[in-house]
Amino acid sequence: MYFAYQGKRKMNYEVHGEGKPLVILNGLMMSTKSWEPFLEELTRYNQVILVDFLDQGQSERITDIEYSHDIHVDSLHDLLQFLELEKVSIFGVSYGGEVALQFALRYPNMTDKLLLFNTAAKTSYWFTELGNSWASALGDPLRYYLAAIPSVYSPKFFDEHEEWVEAHKEKLVEVFVDPMFIDSMKRLINSSQGYDVSNRLGDITAPTLIVASEYDHVTPYYEQKYLHKHIKNSELVYLPDSGHALLFEHPNLMISLMLGFLLTEHHDYKL
Amino acid sequence: MYFAYQGKRKMNYEVHGEGKPLVILNGLMMSTKSWEPFLEELTRYNQVILVDFLDQGQSERITDIEYSHDIHVDSLHDLLQFLELEKVSIFGVSYGGEVALQFALRYPNMTDKLLLFNTAAKTSYWFTELGNSWASALGDPLRYYLAAIPSVYSPKFFDEHEEWVEAHKEKLVEVFVDPMFIDSMKRLINSSQGYDVSNRLGDITAPTLIVASEYDHVTPYYEQKYLHKHIKNSELVYLPDSGHALLFEHPNLMISLMLGFLLTEHHDYKL
Amino acid sequence: MYFAYQGKRKMNYEVHGEGKPLVILNGLMMSTKSWEPFLEELTRYNQVILVDFLDQGQSERITDIEYSHDIHVDSLHDLLQFLELEKVSIFGVSYGGEVALQFALRYPNMTDKLLLFNTAAKTSYWFTELGNSWASALGDPLRYYLAAIPSVYSPKFFDEHEEWVEAHKEKLVEVFVDPMFIDSMKRLINSSQGYDVSNRLGDITAPTLIVASEYDHVTPYYEQKYLHKHIKNSELVYLPDSGHALLFEHPNLMISLMLGFLLTEHHDYKL
Amino acid sequence: MYFAYQGKRKMNYEVHGEGKPLVILNGLMMSTKSWEPFLEELTRYNQVILVDFLDQGQSERITDIEYSHDIHVDSLHDLLQFLELEKVSIFGVSYGGEVALQFALRYPNMTDKLLLFNTAAKTSYWFTELGNSWASALGDPLRYYLAAIPSVYSPKFFDEHEEWVEAHKEKLVEVFVDPMFIDSMKRLINSSQGYDVSNRLGDITAPTLIVASEYDHVTPYYEQKYLHKHIKNSELVYLPDSGHALLFEHPNLMISLMLGFLLTEHHDYKL
Repeated sequence: MYFAYQGKRKMNYEVHGEGKPLVILNGLMMSTKSWEPFLEELTRYNQVILVDFLDQGQSERITDIEYSHDIHVDSLHDLLQFLELEKVSIFGVSYGGEVALQFALRYPNMTDKLLLFNTAAKTSYWFTELGNSWASALGDPLRYYLAAIPSVYSPKFFDEHEEWVEAHKEKLVEVFVDPMFIDSMKRLINSSQGYDVSNRLGDITAPTLIVASEYDHVTPYYEQKYLHKHIKNSELVYLPDSGHALLFEHPNLMISLMLGFLLTEHHDYKL
Repeated sequence: MYFAYQGKRKMNYEVHGEGKPLVILNGLMMSTKSWEPFLEELTRYNQVILVDFLDQGQSERITDIEYSHDIHVDSLHDLLQFLELEKVSIFGVSYGGEVALQFALRYPNMTDKLLLFNTAAKTSYWFTELGNSWASALGDPLRYYLAAIPSVYSPKFFDEHEEWVEAHKEKLVEVFVDPMFIDSMKRLINSSQGYDVSNRLGDITAPTLIVASEYDHVTPYYEQKYLHKHIKNSELVYLPDSGHALLFEHPNLMISLMLGFLLTEHHDYKL
Repeated sequence: MYFAYQGKRKMNYEVHGEGKPLVILNGLMMSTKSWEPFLEELTRYNQVILVDFLDQGQSERITDIEYSHDIHVDSLHDLLQFLELEKVSIFGVSYGGEVALQFALRYPNMTDKLLLFNTAAKTSYWFTELGNSWASALGDPLRYYLAAIPSVYSPKFFDEHEEWVEAHKEKLVEVFVDPMFIDSMKRLINSSQGYDVSNRLGDITAPTLIVASEYDHVTPYYEQKYLHKHIKNSELVYLPDSGHALLFEHPNLMISLMLGFLLTEHHDYKL
Repeated sequence: MYFAYQGKRKMNYEVHGEGKPLVILNGLMMSTKSWEPFLEELTRYNQVILVDFLDQGQSERITDIEYSHDIHVDSLHDLLQFLELEKVSIFGVSYGGEVALQFALRYPNMTDKLLLFNTAAKTSYWFTELGNSWASALGDPLRYYLAAIPSVYSPKFFDEHEEWVEAHKEKLVEVFVDPMFIDSMKRLINSSQGYDVSNRLGDITAPTLIVASEYDHVTPYYEQKYLHKHIKNSELVYLPDSGHALLFEHPNLMISLMLGFLLTEHHDYKL
């Protein structure tokens, strides 16, 4: 389905199932398609709204302006109004988690629960250079694969699933050759510049689940410790041995953590 | 409600709600009452069976024989048959997790999912001496409190909740003065001697969630790493900064982890 | 050798070897004797000053007054003046580390380097209760052993060295039956009440080595993280799998960390 | 100074100071020059032998044959014979640690102590791809910098030393433009293919120090845990918050760990 943001920019979204609404925000190289295998589980108790950010997946490219994360926060807000959803829980992973945080800060009354998986509070200097390393490898599909993909996995998972990784590599390299993918990726990477909510986390009021991975090279553990320290109503879960891409390394556990947090009503137990 | 194990030993149990059955097995100093505050959450999607082990809570004391964990495995099995429950998920914490593991090994077909929170695969020499330290402090309620309770919390939680801890202390000391409590506790501690399933974990087939805490002095993290390494179909979650008593330190997260694992159907995703 | 603090209280000390002076401050249940096996290594490049705190080892008992750590800081200072040592490096473990920190704050010009092993910045509420658990077990030697000793080791070391632990136990229980030991221990435990330098760590200027152990139940890891965060010129080393008693679990590594830090001159490398 | 390996290949080495000999083996992008700032400290008690591997630093390029680590083990052995050094301690970092391990396996009688900093037991599939990502970025100096350098630091150090990092970047980019550097780097990366001593670690008899860093993306922590588990006579030290390049992030601590381990004679204490 398409929503026309500002009456013109076509944004791909899908609504599945019924129940309390959960919006899922993709990581950089993901799309609504990434969630297909999990829809059976995710929609058992919730309505699930999948979205491709502008310049991502099947959403429209943005070639006329430079943009920051703001365009995603805005367009998500307008989409939710269009869908007449007054309050939603938001799950975001990595890039998606950063947009989720900014949405929760701008629209606290529309934010039910916040689920931040492998997410940071700002685009640090280090992360800027990591982004630059990806951007500078774009153009040559194998080089881009090598720059961006192995670091997304925990080294152990990568080693133990060589066959799967190699099959996946073939498919990815085909995607990475696409000029449209390349241009979008450059702009999306660029849109993270200047992102910094590190001083505003105290304003987050939504119950928040923060998930960190031991071998997450992209959004290292100390970022999630920082989020947990500054978001009042937050819980921190740490996954030993796993990497940035929980989706692939621990899909059942990822779903399980999501559902559990969504389906639990949080009480101030006086034990 | 009472079930008469072997036609004679009265075992206290409660059945709440409807849905797929979840049996909850207490830690050493817990009882069915410990779960009351959480029943609203726990029964939203599941039927919950609470049980006091024999010699625990409102179940009958066992003063005529020495016993091991076996009596709990047996009596739980007979109770489930009596309740006509063919397959249940079992959550156990600490002592309860140890009984859960043995139940899953003896009755694999009756075990749906296994949730092992702060649990070990055997009563190590170290744990034996820790148990002895508790046993040797029994008799003097304050001494027993000091021996058994502070180590159950993470030091940080304890420090940050001094008022709550002190109020709790008053109540506990009143319990610890009770001769019936003292005698039961001695027998329950004693029943863990010889417990060792460390070489049999490969036989566990149920999807298993293992939860570990950074500052768990009673069942230290390396025990849960061992469980995770040897139980094929298991997931490991690590909770930074928390102690042995998740119930008190992170009740919402505990419920959330339980519900999530129970409500997720585990797939062999071919991603 | 004995030094008469304030002309009257006899304090046991030993001076070994030659070179830059290193003062070694004992943990609660240690004494100058604990260091005998290591003197060959420790004196190869340094002069080593061993000290029994007042009320410890072969130093005089303090039965006429209540005291805090201050008496140790004072008496150490006077001893060093008597020995005409103007500047010393100070190694302290646990209780000894706490005295070392207070010495460094009061006599910064006399403090060369600071080596804090398994040390905390304050006697927290939690630690007070742990101390109370030890104090309340005094009187019955086996009970005291169980209360104080197993928690000093990492569970794994304890399990893997059962024979050694049992032999050690026999010797310790003989010590714990001694009324003089019992009374001293009560006073030493009590002397830690009110200890708190957590707000003054910014004043420490000495190069400081902080060593933490994964399974240190007595002075948990977050205490050393706190020290490291607030002592400007400090380095933090973390020892996986080990417990509070490095002396027994990793003697070679302990000596190695001590010597390395002492023998390295710290530079502000402009690399 | 130059040694002619096999009478022809010129190998750059330096001998500094007197005392028990310590051989220092460089990481991939290091050279004898990297150690200059530390010679004052390192030579205080030891003789230090610095070496540029063939194809590294001021040693001769190897353009006529393909080679593996073996050539370094061989040439190091011949150099030591030439220097009439019968037994040496060997420090190696990363690539240098891997050569050190192989030297210790082939020449146990010539190996005194082994110091393995940020080292792995094999070139895993994951590490192969990481090496490929570096190799594929060679040619464009900025791209190579981005591929290889930021991941060598802990993200936190990188962020907190932006000015230093940027100044360093300028210098590095000038090096990375050099065709001789590029060709050597390709061959050195390639020489790690097939490296695997993971099944032979039980044969290591030298006292071994293993140092790991929390945010070491290049040789992740689980590699050092593996080394520690399988090298009998080893100690494991873990450095929280630091990255692969201890040399830059914690120079004083690095020196301190080296000296301490070298200067301590290891005893089998019967405590």
